Amino acid sequence: MSTLATHTGYEPALLKAARMESTGRTPLWIMRQAGRVLPEYRKVREKHSLLDICRNPELAASVTLQPLERFDVDAAIVFADIVTPLVGVGIEVELVEKVGPVIDPPVRSRGDLERLRPLEPEQDVPYMLEALRLVRAELPDEKALIGFAGAPFTLATYLIEGGPSRNYAATKAMMYSQPDLWHGLMGRLSGMVKTYLLAQAAAGAQALQLFDSWVGWLSRRDYQEYVFPYTREILSAVKAAGAPVIHFATGSGGLNEVIRESGADVVGLDWRVPLDEAWASLGAVAVQGNLDPAVLLGPPEVVREQTRDVLQRAGGRPGHIFNLGHGILPQTPLDNVMHMIDCVREWDGAHAS
Amino acid sequence: MSTLATHTGYEPALLKAARMESTGRTPLWIMRQAGRVLPEYRKVREKHSLLDICRNPELAASVTLQPLERFDVDAAIVFADIVTPLVGVGIEVELVEKVGPVIDPPVRSRGDLERLRPLEPEQDVPYMLEALRLVRAELPDEKALIGFAGAPFTLATYLIEGGPSRNYAATKAMMYSQPDLWHGLMGRLSGMVKTYLLAQAAAGAQALQLFDSWVGWLSRRDYQEYVFPYTREILSAVKAAGAPVIHFATGSGGLNEVIRESGADVVGLDWRVPLDEAWASLGAVAVQGNLDPAVLLGPPEVVREQTRDVLQRAGGRPGHIFNLGHGILPQTPLDNVMHMIDCVREWDGAHAS
Repeated sequence: MSTLATHTGYEPALLKAARMESTGRTPLWIMRQAGRVLPEYRKVREKHSLLDICRNPELAASVTLQPLERFDVDAAIVFADIVTPLVGVGIEVELVEKVGPVIDPPVRSRGDLERLRPLEPEQDVPYMLEALRLVRAELPDEKALIGFAGAPFTLATYLIEGGPSRNYAATKAMMYSQPDLWHGLMGRLSGMVKTYLLAQAAAGAQALQLFDSWVGWLSRRDYQEYVFPYTREILSAVKAAGAPVIHFATGSGGLNEVIRESGADVVGLDWRVPLDEAWASLGAVAVQGNLDPAVLLGPPEVVREQTRDVLQRAGGRPGHIFNLGHGILPQTPLDNVMHMIDCVREWDGAHAS
Repeated sequence: MSTLATHTGYEPALLKAARMESTGRTPLWIMRQAGRVLPEYRKVREKHSLLDICRNPELAASVTLQPLERFDVDAAIVFADIVTPLVGVGIEVELVEKVGPVIDPPVRSRGDLERLRPLEPEQDVPYMLEALRLVRAELPDEKALIGFAGAPFTLATYLIEGGPSRNYAATKAMMYSQPDLWHGLMGRLSGMVKTYLLAQAAAGAQALQLFDSWVGWLSRRDYQEYVFPYTREILSAVKAAGAPVIHFATGSGGLNEVIRESGADVVGLDWRVPLDEAWASLGAVAVQGNLDPAVLLGPPEVVREQTRDVLQRAGGRPGHIFNLGHGILPQTPLDNVMHMIDCVREWDGAHAS
């Protein structure tokens, strides 16, 4: 497609926004933009499992690029699963439809830690790195390529609970009752995530998102004691590679005053706290997100009103990246996605200096 | 048991705290204290389904009193299910083990609203009112009897989703796309909840907790537009009956500045925002909760440390009711419950004037 073939020499707006520079265009991407919301993706899924797509670099690259052919977004995010590095070191994971990743047996003892050997990206997840290289070669200069990893806490919840959870009881019980085991696990996962993100940057990822999806289920004191030191260490190591890092969590409004010290360049916001208020609590970092993905299930006038509300709260300040506050819902009508993007571009047009 | 037989003429500490008066004793109760955490309850459940217990006033009363025979708590909360009033008006609900309430078919159309006729408590839920009367007759004067209801939004999520949900997509889609239907549903549910709570007060409940368990999944603007007017209307009608009202939600830290205007006497806090900070954002109301229920899965020293942290943050100020930040987890060791209560009483002893 012609859009994808243009190499203009422009630096991606997303990277400028991550440095809090003015862009003249609100960089926009959509969490889970490559995935079940697209009929062309669902067609691929008829023949291939999710993990099969991940393991096939050409397929993963083409799925990564699908949303860019349809939508005026400013970034591609590599198609991979949060469990990719776990699978890479040999953990058996089943991705169960409508449930999520299931890990049986779960990780519950010191002996289980041996299942988490250090990640060697070029050997363990070569397909993922190759997909990044393929996408980067295709991508116009003004679009950013985002790599990502699940953060240690979020990976730990899947390993310990054996799958998704509503209350993370087994995870928290380990934290409180077996702190040595907990820190042993978090140490191994941190090493894995660090190595994984650095390899992605080397393979062409220009920004890296660390998904700590479930950390908002912790109290601030527990987050600070059991999780945050690992987050900070990873971000500090990864930033040295030069790619800006986006930290994303949901339900984490109460953690903002800790997360602001993480060293993240960009903090992803869910929809619970209004953008201006959340940004004020985060200080001098860029922000991304804030629109409830469920809004895209509403009529065009609600999409428009709530999209404009997010834009107005950001107020055109440098460092705002437009996105949803969580992954796009599979049942979202594509017309609403288009409409949301049009609203952002209209705003840009009206506010261009 | 002798504790239960004592009629001392004291006003329950919980009611004084709800008025923000000094008590000399931190009133304490535990959400879901009557239930699966107790072996004596599980024994009853071997022979009776949960809804059977609810429908048998003697059994419901005895289960309500079980935790008071074991623990030094300051209140009984009537044993009932959040769906009790829905069942009362004839909605078919199945309580599925490890899932929750399942409602099939769900409520999705204007025609479905007819299934929600007005509640007539003495005819529709006589067993619940009788259980309250039986418990009240047994309860020593210094213990409070708490009645409760699920709030309209939370009931609406079960009705619309057909059961528990992770994202409330169908509920939000109705809010945005069919506002007339949404407001029709919320109007009917509000009438039901108001009538239900007033009947509980008349039957002897001395305080009423409104559980809006899932409202923390809404953005502040959506909460304000689609839910809050109903909450305020219910609280205003119920407060006229003289019983203090406790408003409880989880993940709702971002809504505190709206909830503070609800008219609630007491606001229940989950564990995400530290108590002192949450209380400051709520202004002149009493607060309850804040200890992560998962802490009770940890070792005694963690239970002690985190219990004391909550007490210290409350700082002995009038209006603090000790509780967990969500329902007690079924797998909680009872020794830890005892230990938590001992820590509170020890604090009271050290800080009594």
